[in-house]
Amino acid sequence: MKDKTLKIWHTETGRELKTLTGHSHWVNAVAIAPDGKTAISASWDKTLKIWDTETGSELKTLTGHSDSAYAVAIAPDGKTAISASEDKTLKIWDTETGCELKTLIGHTEDVTAVAIAPNGKTAISASWDHTLKIWDLLTGKEVASFSGEHGFNCCAISRDGVTVVAGDNSGRVHFLRLEGMGDLGDV
Amino acid sequence: MKDKTLKIWHTETGRELKTLTGHSHWVNAVAIAPDGKTAISASWDKTLKIWDTETGSELKTLTGHSDSAYAVAIAPDGKTAISASEDKTLKIWDTETGCELKTLIGHTEDVTAVAIAPNGKTAISASWDHTLKIWDLLTGKEVASFSGEHGFNCCAISRDGVTVVAGDNSGRVHFLRLEGMGDLGDV
Repeated sequence: MKDKTLKIWHTETGRELKTLTGHSHWVNAVAIAPDGKTAISASWDKTLKIWDTETGSELKTLTGHSDSAYAVAIAPDGKTAISASEDKTLKIWDTETGCELKTLIGHTEDVTAVAIAPNGKTAISASWDHTLKIWDLLTGKEVASFSGEHGFNCCAISRDGVTVVAGDNSGRVHFLRLEGMGDLGDV
Repeated sequence: MKDKTLKIWHTETGRELKTLTGHSHWVNAVAIAPDGKTAISASWDKTLKIWDTETGSELKTLTGHSDSAYAVAIAPDGKTAISASEDKTLKIWDTETGCELKTLIGHTEDVTAVAIAPNGKTAISASWDHTLKIWDLLTGKEVASFSGEHGFNCCAISRDGVTVVAGDNSGRVHFLRLEGMGDLGDV
């Protein structure tokens, strides 16, 4: 192997560091915390799990969703995470304790995707109910909603926290701009 | 609305900035470039599209995949992007020209997810062929492969480029460590 290419998994052994049979069903999504020390998985088994990436140990199981957990995002400070579920809700979790902090209610169909703004204060969710919603992560309240004509499958937010891009199941790509975020207030 | 919450879409109008009927089928994924100026969508219509997030204009259509494009990741420098497809390949694209630079061949089933390492030199892909593969983005060559017992649905790589987390369709979460990446060479 040449210089500047990588050595294979786990030093010379070529073997996986750790595999854990944590979930009882399909893992839909994984996210790694900003510090790289923990990861969170979202599963069709209705739970999320927090993992120690160093040891591969399962740290917490996040229970509360009544249907599949489709997506997960971790806040920039790593202290909270948000999950999107087939049960039409999102949930905010304390990543230290594994406790549910808030349930975000408002969508009327599966919530398919979620992204957290870089300031860590707001999240955007995509749903098959034809809406994108913005949530205040501190209060758990819906701050804004945009209605399209088709279900939304995916969403992303830019590094400056201003541009939101979302895709729907008709093939449309939507561009939205968030104004007055962060310390700008309601000017 | 209180201070520090956000104003609704597109200043006072409450309306979407731009919606474009770009794809002819379901949009599976969207990614925003690091500078926020462009976004890329991946669709079941076998194409990806590059968008100007400011104007909402479609800049390029990336054609070449023979089946659904499931996932897309943009390199840290924004100059290239990589797509994962049902056609069992990944493709590297020049985001400026829209030209296909490389096709990454090696998977034997749908490629479901892709992530680019923070150094921009390598990518990891997840496939229903039960493998995770590491690719050298410059050469387009497969550098390493890890075989599991089930199809992989999702993968992520940590900010330090060392830890890879992937989830499979049995519920397992896999942790892998990339050694000797970047300038460390083959020591």
